[in-house]
Amino acid sequence: MATSYFADIEPIKFEGIDSTNPLAYRYYDKNRVVMGKTMAEHLRMAVCYWHTFCWDGFDVFGAGTFNRPWHGGPIDQARADHKLDEAFEFFTRLGLPYFCFHDVDVMAHAETIDEHVRNFAVIVDKIEAKMAATGVKLLWGTANMFSHPRYMGGASTNPDPDVFRFAATQVRHCIEATHRLGGANYVLWGGREGYDCLLNTDLKQEKAQFGRFLQMVVEHKHKIGFKGDILIEPKPHEPTKHQYDFDVETIYGFLLANGLEKEVKMNIEANHATLSGHSFEHEIASAINLGIFGSIDMNRGDPQNGWDTDQFPNDIREITTAMYYILKNGGFQNGGNNFDAKVRRQSIDAADLFHGHIGGIDILARSLLNAAAMIEGGELDAVVTERYAGWQSADAQAMLSGASNLEAISDAAVAAKIDPKPRSGKQEYVENIVSRYI
Amino acid sequence: MATSYFADIEPIKFEGIDSTNPLAYRYYDKNRVVMGKTMAEHLRMAVCYWHTFCWDGFDVFGAGTFNRPWHGGPIDQARADHKLDEAFEFFTRLGLPYFCFHDVDVMAHAETIDEHVRNFAVIVDKIEAKMAATGVKLLWGTANMFSHPRYMGGASTNPDPDVFRFAATQVRHCIEATHRLGGANYVLWGGREGYDCLLNTDLKQEKAQFGRFLQMVVEHKHKIGFKGDILIEPKPHEPTKHQYDFDVETIYGFLLANGLEKEVKMNIEANHATLSGHSFEHEIASAINLGIFGSIDMNRGDPQNGWDTDQFPNDIREITTAMYYILKNGGFQNGGNNFDAKVRRQSIDAADLFHGHIGGIDILARSLLNAAAMIEGGELDAVVTERYAGWQSADAQAMLSGASNLEAISDAAVAAKIDPKPRSGKQEYVENIVSRYI
Amino acid sequence: MATSYFADIEPIKFEGIDSTNPLAYRYYDKNRVVMGKTMAEHLRMAVCYWHTFCWDGFDVFGAGTFNRPWHGGPIDQARADHKLDEAFEFFTRLGLPYFCFHDVDVMAHAETIDEHVRNFAVIVDKIEAKMAATGVKLLWGTANMFSHPRYMGGASTNPDPDVFRFAATQVRHCIEATHRLGGANYVLWGGREGYDCLLNTDLKQEKAQFGRFLQMVVEHKHKIGFKGDILIEPKPHEPTKHQYDFDVETIYGFLLANGLEKEVKMNIEANHATLSGHSFEHEIASAINLGIFGSIDMNRGDPQNGWDTDQFPNDIREITTAMYYILKNGGFQNGGNNFDAKVRRQSIDAADLFHGHIGGIDILARSLLNAAAMIEGGELDAVVTERYAGWQSADAQAMLSGASNLEAISDAAVAAKIDPKPRSGKQEYVENIVSRYI
Amino acid sequence: MATSYFADIEPIKFEGIDSTNPLAYRYYDKNRVVMGKTMAEHLRMAVCYWHTFCWDGFDVFGAGTFNRPWHGGPIDQARADHKLDEAFEFFTRLGLPYFCFHDVDVMAHAETIDEHVRNFAVIVDKIEAKMAATGVKLLWGTANMFSHPRYMGGASTNPDPDVFRFAATQVRHCIEATHRLGGANYVLWGGREGYDCLLNTDLKQEKAQFGRFLQMVVEHKHKIGFKGDILIEPKPHEPTKHQYDFDVETIYGFLLANGLEKEVKMNIEANHATLSGHSFEHEIASAINLGIFGSIDMNRGDPQNGWDTDQFPNDIREITTAMYYILKNGGFQNGGNNFDAKVRRQSIDAADLFHGHIGGIDILARSLLNAAAMIEGGELDAVVTERYAGWQSADAQAMLSGASNLEAISDAAVAAKIDPKPRSGKQEYVENIVSRYI
Ligand SMILES: [Co+2]
Ligand SMILES: [Co+2]
Ligand SMILES: [Co+2]
Ligand SMILES: [Co+2]
Ligand SMILES: [Co+2]
Ligand SMILES: [Co+2]
Ligand SMILES: [Co+2]
Ligand SMILES: [Co+2]
Repeated sequence: MATSYFADIEPIKFEGIDSTNPLAYRYYDKNRVVMGKTMAEHLRMAVCYWHTFCWDGFDVFGAGTFNRPWHGGPIDQARADHKLDEAFEFFTRLGLPYFCFHDVDVMAHAETIDEHVRNFAVIVDKIEAKMAATGVKLLWGTANMFSHPRYMGGASTNPDPDVFRFAATQVRHCIEATHRLGGANYVLWGGREGYDCLLNTDLKQEKAQFGRFLQMVVEHKHKIGFKGDILIEPKPHEPTKHQYDFDVETIYGFLLANGLEKEVKMNIEANHATLSGHSFEHEIASAINLGIFGSIDMNRGDPQNGWDTDQFPNDIREITTAMYYILKNGGFQNGGNNFDAKVRRQSIDAADLFHGHIGGIDILARSLLNAAAMIEGGELDAVVTERYAGWQSADAQAMLSGASNLEAISDAAVAAKIDPKPRSGKQEYVENIVSRYI
Repeated sequence: MATSYFADIEPIKFEGIDSTNPLAYRYYDKNRVVMGKTMAEHLRMAVCYWHTFCWDGFDVFGAGTFNRPWHGGPIDQARADHKLDEAFEFFTRLGLPYFCFHDVDVMAHAETIDEHVRNFAVIVDKIEAKMAATGVKLLWGTANMFSHPRYMGGASTNPDPDVFRFAATQVRHCIEATHRLGGANYVLWGGREGYDCLLNTDLKQEKAQFGRFLQMVVEHKHKIGFKGDILIEPKPHEPTKHQYDFDVETIYGFLLANGLEKEVKMNIEANHATLSGHSFEHEIASAINLGIFGSIDMNRGDPQNGWDTDQFPNDIREITTAMYYILKNGGFQNGGNNFDAKVRRQSIDAADLFHGHIGGIDILARSLLNAAAMIEGGELDAVVTERYAGWQSADAQAMLSGASNLEAISDAAVAAKIDPKPRSGKQEYVENIVSRYI
Repeated sequence: MATSYFADIEPIKFEGIDSTNPLAYRYYDKNRVVMGKTMAEHLRMAVCYWHTFCWDGFDVFGAGTFNRPWHGGPIDQARADHKLDEAFEFFTRLGLPYFCFHDVDVMAHAETIDEHVRNFAVIVDKIEAKMAATGVKLLWGTANMFSHPRYMGGASTNPDPDVFRFAATQVRHCIEATHRLGGANYVLWGGREGYDCLLNTDLKQEKAQFGRFLQMVVEHKHKIGFKGDILIEPKPHEPTKHQYDFDVETIYGFLLANGLEKEVKMNIEANHATLSGHSFEHEIASAINLGIFGSIDMNRGDPQNGWDTDQFPNDIREITTAMYYILKNGGFQNGGNNFDAKVRRQSIDAADLFHGHIGGIDILARSLLNAAAMIEGGELDAVVTERYAGWQSADAQAMLSGASNLEAISDAAVAAKIDPKPRSGKQEYVENIVSRYI
Repeated sequence: MATSYFADIEPIKFEGIDSTNPLAYRYYDKNRVVMGKTMAEHLRMAVCYWHTFCWDGFDVFGAGTFNRPWHGGPIDQARADHKLDEAFEFFTRLGLPYFCFHDVDVMAHAETIDEHVRNFAVIVDKIEAKMAATGVKLLWGTANMFSHPRYMGGASTNPDPDVFRFAATQVRHCIEATHRLGGANYVLWGGREGYDCLLNTDLKQEKAQFGRFLQMVVEHKHKIGFKGDILIEPKPHEPTKHQYDFDVETIYGFLLANGLEKEVKMNIEANHATLSGHSFEHEIASAINLGIFGSIDMNRGDPQNGWDTDQFPNDIREITTAMYYILKNGGFQNGGNNFDAKVRRQSIDAADLFHGHIGGIDILARSLLNAAAMIEGGELDAVVTERYAGWQSADAQAMLSGASNLEAISDAAVAAKIDPKPRSGKQEYVENIVSRYI
């Protein structure tokens, strides 16, 4: 690579909130300490390989618009190498500590299963070298088991067991590569693990396949000594009509049914949350409550459009609330914030890739500061504690412990002629508290 | 009751598909035998008390329009009795075997907890007499724990333990009444078991309350010897922003987490299914697959409006498909089809109540015939069986049984140079099969 | 009225952004001058009578929860007077310059048409006295033509011409009262001007009725010398399946078809905008572009719930963008920001009414400051100007002026072998500009 | 072309409703006369070129799956010719009278504007010959002004006037070709005529461009003597965030504002209707009411998925109602039913293309029969006529004619003490009427 595609962009620096430089951080000061950790340690932000380096700007209605130097032809090894060089140029100029990838994002195109294994191995060596040279780390790896036509009817849930075998092969090699590259997590996103048509589908069979597949992934993780988390990323639909990983609670039931609730955590994407009829913070709070919170795919959807737009986040209220729940739960362990976000199809300049990421990074940094202040302020906690205070009594606790029963409770209630009076839920008050911290 | 409000309407009869009498059945011939059972036995249809006898036509934007003789003042015992008389007039004129009720639908209004118990007991005696006199049976009972202001923040999930106690009292007496009246099931619908605002909510606490409450209901059922099913009715939201019983799979996870997956089944409402982002048949097929299918709240929503419109069903394709899954699963056991449906606010005549029900009943009867023919035709089963045939091999079965692992599968796949070829999913073909049976 | 229901709440004061007093303004400093006008003059904020004083907290699933002293019985003159006293207590404590009302919000309940006219006249006198005593002004009046059962099938669009006549009577008296009270505008909200069922509806007839009705309203306005604007408030549906005033562009076509495009403007509600599949700012920008922007019903919906939740606004980005378009257009003329918003059903305390409004008021004030800074900064304007600069050439202008034609343009284009190259739309850059001002 | 890709499929024949042959028509008997015209004349059905011959099964998440013989490489003249041969093989085997195309669907790929004109001219000659040889006719032509990167920011609404010129060139040549080929209509679908981001968009400028463009298209139509209709196809969004042709009423306002309401009609797509928050029949009835109904893009969406799935129609109730409104309006004039529908990505066999179309064709044929019977039955008309009968009185007509005013109407209403009583809207009754005809 003679001159980088990104050569005109200087490394992005923190300049403070008074800066009007669009290519600088106003909030993200990576070494600034907040509640005992640096911003970088808190946020653990990652660039995703697919949207930023693989997608060429095509959509269902039109051809690619980006024309990056590595676009425009079959992905042979030279093109894969070129893309890798530029990816690490971008990572380092942006100054984020992590990246994420699918196997097929990084490797030269393979026609056969053995070529897949070989080509992937080639690029993993090169990734390792790049990581060593730059210090950029891997937040997670994943296998793409939805783009190739063989996966049109699902991967582990395919009616053809050979497709299940192919998927097993990809995951086995991808999780081993992730382990070798020091990845903090390994992710499975459903892709086409769902159905387009219920009438031709054996739901029970497909879920049995999916369950056993996931168990084998967990078994293999332990076998190879991978210490990171196995993560599933919920999504309700698209490309399928219905995806088995619909939302956090659906997956929780699935994990329980397969004995995996201690082994698998959630990679929650903002846009997938809203597509499933939930707020982003709902999915986060639910996963935390169920003990399966893992990592975040940070982006946003368009509330007026019904598909996965994967835009960069810019809603300070939404992200502040998300960070509040995460921070109250002790922050990220292995997880982090992966920008599963793409610039718009009309944003064709190299600079646009920076604008997208900088906007998202600064929203996250500002949200972290807001969330820390909210925790320190303590007003929200006070409302919640006071609201449920009645449950602290011994008699109330007994109702929850299994020590009581319907008959005893009802007899006592009638005898006492209880007449509970409504108390204000103070919703507008707590919403104003959040507004104050933004 | 001198003359019934429904006196002008003759009992509805089956007249066959050539009838143009709007007050006759064209498909529902209750004694017609289909696949070994009568239509009445298959469909187990019920009128709901609330929409048909309690609702006066009000909505958020305007006052009641119906002006039934028993509307218009406080529900004292005389009005409750009047309503009961007319309800059984309606049931018998319509000719359905079942009805369903909430405690507060049937009883005189009570100001206090002890008055609640007394007033409910009074009406249960009268209901029992009416049932004996008419032969109409109870499909299920349920307690209304969402209309009174005390329940504004939830019932079992309320921040105030006294509200939990009040709810326990209502459920205890309502399940005992249901048992005494020979009810086939007992239902819990979430109502306000959810949250309006995540910020003032302790998710973990509320779900713990809900879980223990449900366990106590199951314990009490066994204690009193009630043999019917305990059913939960999923709904994603409305009136709350988020309801804990979001959909079938969410509840399944909750049941597993509370050890109740063998004790509690689903009462699936069509309109709630579509509000949660699922098709009606998806929710049915999912519940069947998970072993928790129970009963149906039969109605329809408006695909262009985002709230629970509870209209009478009229989509022959949707209901045929729903009945197909139910019938393939052996049909209803304790469950049935409760019309949780209301005539529109402008449908103010007594005859409109019949039109609504007759339309729904005939759609169900016609769907039953269609579904039976589809099962007998067998084309759909053949497609599914053939599609998954590859999984019958010993090697494929071993992948599911736990006898294999990721490494072995991937090594064998690479060695065999597998190259699975896509096969058509035949979606349009199977959709046309359904069209043929409609 | 001995002691006001709001007696415990001191008048709300501006305390600045460092205040943590939940009953103070942090941004709304009514006399602060921004771009040549005070905040009060810019924002022209109003309290709505219906949600704040009439609604008792009921919803479709449950009874009222608020129990204000004037709730709980028929609205006779004494109750109407009590409500009026408390309403002006609230207005003055809150310190907003305006209020809005429906005729039936303020008056004693009337059984007949002549009683309606009389009771309304009685309260208008009293309102006039209150306004004089307090200095509170009327942003707009409107007639409620949707709550009474007579309007179940629409008002001006009703199949019964007598309902049209009743509606004409209400509007005539309400617009005259609005004129007398110095109201700045008169609003028509569709209510039930739409259909529940297309099959029983004569679309052409109903729209002809609606068109003529609106023309008569405009004629009457001129006859009585009312100088305010006549406003229509778009809403896509709810309570009807389809409302004729679906959105801004639908109404624009209707105005053109009835020769009213210079006579009628839009009252745009945020929650109605999002229910119709548009962003709030889209509806504002569209109305401005079409020359029919009038006023705002300021609130927010719940992006996960599909009905009109009418919550107080709290999205700083959305409201900043809205204010940006309004301010760029010269700000409000007769219009203003009416809080068509209600506290949640669990927010039962008098203080909650203040929290709701204070949160909304401060979001608006902060948005005004943001929007003014964005205009002064000028970055967004610069992007737009540069993006369309090519259209300034004489040749390009000729294409728009009617001086050219398809054949000439295409011949010239082929001859010149034009090959237009995509230029970046810079979406992320402009989104980051907005983030900087928030 | 040695052997056709479709060689194994015999021409599809009508076999009647008892046929179980999946490759036969059960309802579509093209020469059967219904209300004075043959089914073929009534339905005027067309195959679309794009979904059936151009799309290779790719989606945003994965590569093409179809592998038709003419797929897989650049579309040079030989591939374009091959595709054309197969298209007419399909048309004739299916037995439909019409097809539709975009310019770029049929032609060899062009790099430059002059090559575009040349390559298009080449294929138009060949299409003409094929039409002559087979008797297949053109329902409409259209220009694709959204797939090429030059159109990423719109065609006529592009910020770059050269893109406007390029679009003008395509449309001029495409409308001339449509005229020469005897096309019955010419369609404009918005494609990217809208915005992705309001902040960088000059709404007023873009709509002025769009308006003048459309005027020039109409002027050119008259100049060349094209007698068909100019049609616009509404769509609310996708690929853009907001499309200017949002829905029928939005376009109507735009036509009025540009003096085109007598010149341009609507091409209504079922899936676009539902994406815009309307029912399909609503959009049809609205266009008929406004006098701008033209043609239909027949397909269906997925009510649980928020993007344009373009599936083949299969809802007998929806299509019956749609045909009812069209037939009551006298049926199609120049318009017809274009199947803007695609088989699913897993439906990779040649036979699947037939299954998709056959299912859609038979639903349409059956709906035609149902609709004709509904009209002949007359029950719906009777309800509507009776419901609005009050408006026939002279006094009521005077209110609509402009002869009256608000003051006179209200004075008379009060004097007469009118007290209009609600009458039932009979919604369930009329819905049951429809059920009877299905
Ligand atoms: Co993601
Ligand atoms: Co996404
Ligand atoms: Co229900
Ligand atoms: Co419901
Ligand atoms: Co409003
Ligand atoms: Co509203
Ligand atoms: Co179309
Ligand atoms: Co479409």
